[in-house]
Amino acid sequence: MDKGFELHPQLAADCILVGRLPLSQLLLLNDARYPWFVLVPARPGITEVFELDEADQQQLWRESARLAIYLKDVCGADKINIGALGNLVPQLHVHHIGRFIDDPAWPGPVWGHSVATPYEPAAVEPRMDSIRERFSGDLTVSANSD
Amino acid sequence: MDKGFELHPQLAADCILVGRLPLSQLLLLNDARYPWFVLVPARPGITEVFELDEADQQQLWRESARLAIYLKDVCGADKINIGALGNLVPQLHVHHIGRFIDDPAWPGPVWGHSVATPYEPAAVEPRMDSIRERFSGDLTVSANSD
Repeated sequence: MDKGFELHPQLAADCILVGRLPLSQLLLLNDARYPWFVLVPARPGITEVFELDEADQQQLWRESARLAIYLKDVCGADKINIGALGNLVPQLHVHHIGRFIDDPAWPGPVWGHSVATPYEPAAVEPRMDSIRERFSGDLTVSANSD
Repeated sequence: MDKGFELHPQLAADCILVGRLPLSQLLLLNDARYPWFVLVPARPGITEVFELDEADQQQLWRESARLAIYLKDVCGADKINIGALGNLVPQLHVHHIGRFIDDPAWPGPVWGHSVATPYEPAAVEPRMDSIRERFSGDLTVSANSD
């Protein structure tokens, strides 16, 4: 499975693996100031959305919509920000950030705003439980991703 | 057509209308420093992608992929940035920016970086001709959008 795909080391350093969706690795960005998740389609050598085949593109955006609904309904975000940039890390990854009108970067973008505030260990678990519950059934959580 | 849809006045002020795709208004952001286009699904009252019905979501991302391929192939961009933010302008609109390693904001995001440099009148026409040629057949250009 995922022959030739390996998560970019920068994403591995900045994020915590939540688990595997049908297409993408679902990552939690390690910044406790925002509910911020990243989808990384587990296909090798992809830097732009249009390089995925048609079925994978549709699956990516289905996973994206579910994630955005989670950010709205469960996290109570005022606005969802979705972004595929990749200027520094070329491996295709799509940010999903729940934004709040009193968050540190509002109303500007979060990218490049300020240094992340890593989660306290005790704060990661409830976030993980919440997102994994929402995606249960479609999410594969491997032993080494806890 | 597009009952109840009206382009947000801020988008109308910041952009030049290229024309109408099957789902979206296609806009050129009036910043000559980047090839920068915006898709605005012509549906009233939408602020998040997931609020579009399934068929509209698929159409949005098809239009997005075509636009990104244009930015890559015709504009020669080094990287495509795609973003749906909407913190200031809630009407759903999806940015597509062709990024270059020597552009003013590289490698940061363009949003919030610096004030736009409007196109010189003579520079708009070739850009318009180029994008309209690429989308010809699927693009409706109304008399008042020239």
